[in-house]
Amino acid sequence: MAEREIPYKIYLEESELPTSWYNMRADMKNKPAPLLNPGTLQPMQASELEAVFCEELVKQELDNDHAEIAIPQEILDFYKMYRPSPLVRAYFLEKQLDTPAKIYYKFEGNNTSGSHKLNSAIAQAYYAKKQGLKGVTTETGAGQWGTALSMACSFFGLDCKVYMVKVSYEQKPFRREVMRTYGASVTPSPSETTQIGKKILAEHPGTTGSLGCAISEAVEVAVGTEGYRYVLGSVLNQVLLHQSVIGLETKAALDKYGIKPDMIIGCAGGGSNLGGLIAPFMGEKLRGEADYRIIAVEPASCPSFTRGRYAYDFCDTGMVCPLAKMYTLGCDFIPAPNHAGGLRYHGMSSTLSQLYADGFMEATSVKQTDVFEAAEQFARVEGILPAPESSHAIRVAIDEALKCKETGEAKTIVFGLTGTGYFDMVAYEKFHDGKMSDYIPTDEELEQSWAKLPKV
Amino acid sequence: MAEREIPYKIYLEESELPTSWYNMRADMKNKPAPLLNPGTLQPMQASELEAVFCEELVKQELDNDHAEIAIPQEILDFYKMYRPSPLVRAYFLEKQLDTPAKIYYKFEGNNTSGSHKLNSAIAQAYYAKKQGLKGVTTETGAGQWGTALSMACSFFGLDCKVYMVKVSYEQKPFRREVMRTYGASVTPSPSETTQIGKKILAEHPGTTGSLGCAISEAVEVAVGTEGYRYVLGSVLNQVLLHQSVIGLETKAALDKYGIKPDMIIGCAGGGSNLGGLIAPFMGEKLRGEADYRIIAVEPASCPSFTRGRYAYDFCDTGMVCPLAKMYTLGCDFIPAPNHAGGLRYHGMSSTLSQLYADGFMEATSVKQTDVFEAAEQFARVEGILPAPESSHAIRVAIDEALKCKETGEAKTIVFGLTGTGYFDMVAYEKFHDGKMSDYIPTDEELEQSWAKLPKV
Repeated sequence: MAEREIPYKIYLEESELPTSWYNMRADMKNKPAPLLNPGTLQPMQASELEAVFCEELVKQELDNDHAEIAIPQEILDFYKMYRPSPLVRAYFLEKQLDTPAKIYYKFEGNNTSGSHKLNSAIAQAYYAKKQGLKGVTTETGAGQWGTALSMACSFFGLDCKVYMVKVSYEQKPFRREVMRTYGASVTPSPSETTQIGKKILAEHPGTTGSLGCAISEAVEVAVGTEGYRYVLGSVLNQVLLHQSVIGLETKAALDKYGIKPDMIIGCAGGGSNLGGLIAPFMGEKLRGEADYRIIAVEPASCPSFTRGRYAYDFCDTGMVCPLAKMYTLGCDFIPAPNHAGGLRYHGMSSTLSQLYADGFMEATSVKQTDVFEAAEQFARVEGILPAPESSHAIRVAIDEALKCKETGEAKTIVFGLTGTGYFDMVAYEKFHDGKMSDYIPTDEELEQSWAKLPKV
Repeated sequence: MAEREIPYKIYLEESELPTSWYNMRADMKNKPAPLLNPGTLQPMQASELEAVFCEELVKQELDNDHAEIAIPQEILDFYKMYRPSPLVRAYFLEKQLDTPAKIYYKFEGNNTSGSHKLNSAIAQAYYAKKQGLKGVTTETGAGQWGTALSMACSFFGLDCKVYMVKVSYEQKPFRREVMRTYGASVTPSPSETTQIGKKILAEHPGTTGSLGCAISEAVEVAVGTEGYRYVLGSVLNQVLLHQSVIGLETKAALDKYGIKPDMIIGCAGGGSNLGGLIAPFMGEKLRGEADYRIIAVEPASCPSFTRGRYAYDFCDTGMVCPLAKMYTLGCDFIPAPNHAGGLRYHGMSSTLSQLYADGFMEATSVKQTDVFEAAEQFARVEGILPAPESSHAIRVAIDEALKCKETGEAKTIVFGLTGTGYFDMVAYEKFHDGKMSDYIPTDEELEQSWAKLPKV
């Protein structure tokens, strides 16, 4: 097909949308390591997990066998409100970079949560409703996940209690107001509303919080409240499963125009976007049907893949959650207040960790100011003001496109533009004013954090 | 075509996008009254207007003859970055209202300006660049127009000076930061940087500003600076022309599925969205080819159509701009600080004013709290958190759908969802906290304001 026939934006028809999620684990030879009970250090059974999570989601969490899991009709209908998301050909960025590379991005920001998080939020809310629950609890970092879950809960008439990392709560008052519009309650974490929150505040007075702390608080409330369960926006297998809709749409759109990408780039915090974006491509790679470079991009301030240890660790700071085997900076690690709020998690999805350990993907880390330079450059030519998280992928996509300029190779680059930065203007302001920090943890800090890794 | 075959979102293909704007004036029997020179009270000539506006835009402003004006290729390319906007079938809202009505909305918020304003901004920046200008000046109320123009100027490498109504500047610091990301300078209005600003500040110390003040300042700077012209985001004929892309896409999408609307509803401040949305439908009505109810919705706090006088008035508070014949509350009228920031203009597009005077459209006004109730209801079922401006149209669309429920009529309602409310969370917060004012100007206030109408 002639180059010029590829539109700026590829939108699938409703009839072309995926009707099943894709579960990478079914095609992995080395399955991700199981979650362990923090008391017994034995693999968590479904019955144990069901105290914390919805039953159907526990099934999905533990399912290493089924490659395709049908998406319920109610979720398909909700998806149609804001999906398909466009696969955009970055013609203007290519022109500005003067590169022979062809750049595409899958843009997940065209919904009120401002990111891909809604894909899993609506699924988790649906299963909670189906189970007859009253409500759910969760944590949120930058606020996208909390907003997404608020929207999903409002849609199904569920109560929604959100613990929001304190630094984000303070930097993003408007995020709180959006959640309130959807009827959620929002508490800055750590808080005095939980035992674990009180303990963390006593040990670290003045802490700005972390996802790890907020998870502990949300879990404590879910387990202690009748008719409630806890839901999580990243890291877990079930979340990557739901997010596979991103990759499935991306692949369908590329296939429609006969395009085969050379590399797929995504930002990585807990792994929800990256795991979803790469899913069907990784599937082909796992089955030996095709090869792609797959690149995870993380902030240098929170470098779990590139500098973390592959070990069992707690998923939360309070050490009440199961242990997961993952690349980790230590569950006590609290990153310097950088602005890629959603990428501040100390660990990384077990599934992605296994794939990385097995050499199926690469990882790289980038500095904050370099990320915001790329963000601003992108905003000015492609129109969309990107989320700081997404801009990590933009940075590396631009760098790869510039390498193509040097070598003259017309590679096809696909990256995930996970969301918009409309609620991140405090960070942009710091960048404009030259007040952004590029702090990177020292080896000593990481060693100190790893000293507390559980002995498994 | 069977009802169920109409997708949630109708996206046109690139090949189906309009390549010309539609100029309603060509089909109007009674043309809009000409702009008058504020000194001589004679119709403004092109040569006079060119001191303020770009040459090509002056041509468009004065063109009452050509129904179709080709969209330049550079603008078509830019449009492809964020257009087509979706025409959404509000299945979930219909279900919640339990109405037989079929509700569609044209959603213009999927771009970083957050509204339809980008449609005209990119056109005006293009013509400024083509004329070899260094930059442009403008005013902005709620901030959408300033953001849109910043994006457009950044794209063409033009300087952009924005005068932002002070109340919005203070309520929306993040809007300023978005504009800064695109390289614009933003000054709160009234300011000490202009003669007229100093005069207004002296006469009304502590004023929160108005679009009328900000226009005066921006015009003063444009006229007094070499290589600059002034651009305006609403009211003018040229702006309605550019915005016709909204209505043309809407009509093409409806025609594709054989849908004929019974009524078209749009919010109205200066008229840019409404004039664009209704353009091709009004064209059919003017030519006697079809009939539609066309409804303008304005805030009760700034009711130019429903309580204004149809008279010649100044377009700005400083009385430096040409006179336009329009429905007006008086150029000195400063609405109570309500939150429909973009609908605070004292007058109304001359074209729409003539159409309203000739009975081709209806108008209604709604109270702020009723508007925010509709906004929240809409957000919760349709997912999109709407701009306060847009929510005026939502309010009336819901009311009309509820009337259908009473009568059992399955009418087809189309409304314009002009943008998102992500930068309006201060207003939502006031609404949630019960601190929103429903102030409506008294007859005495309006009489006082009209006393200053120019004698033409």
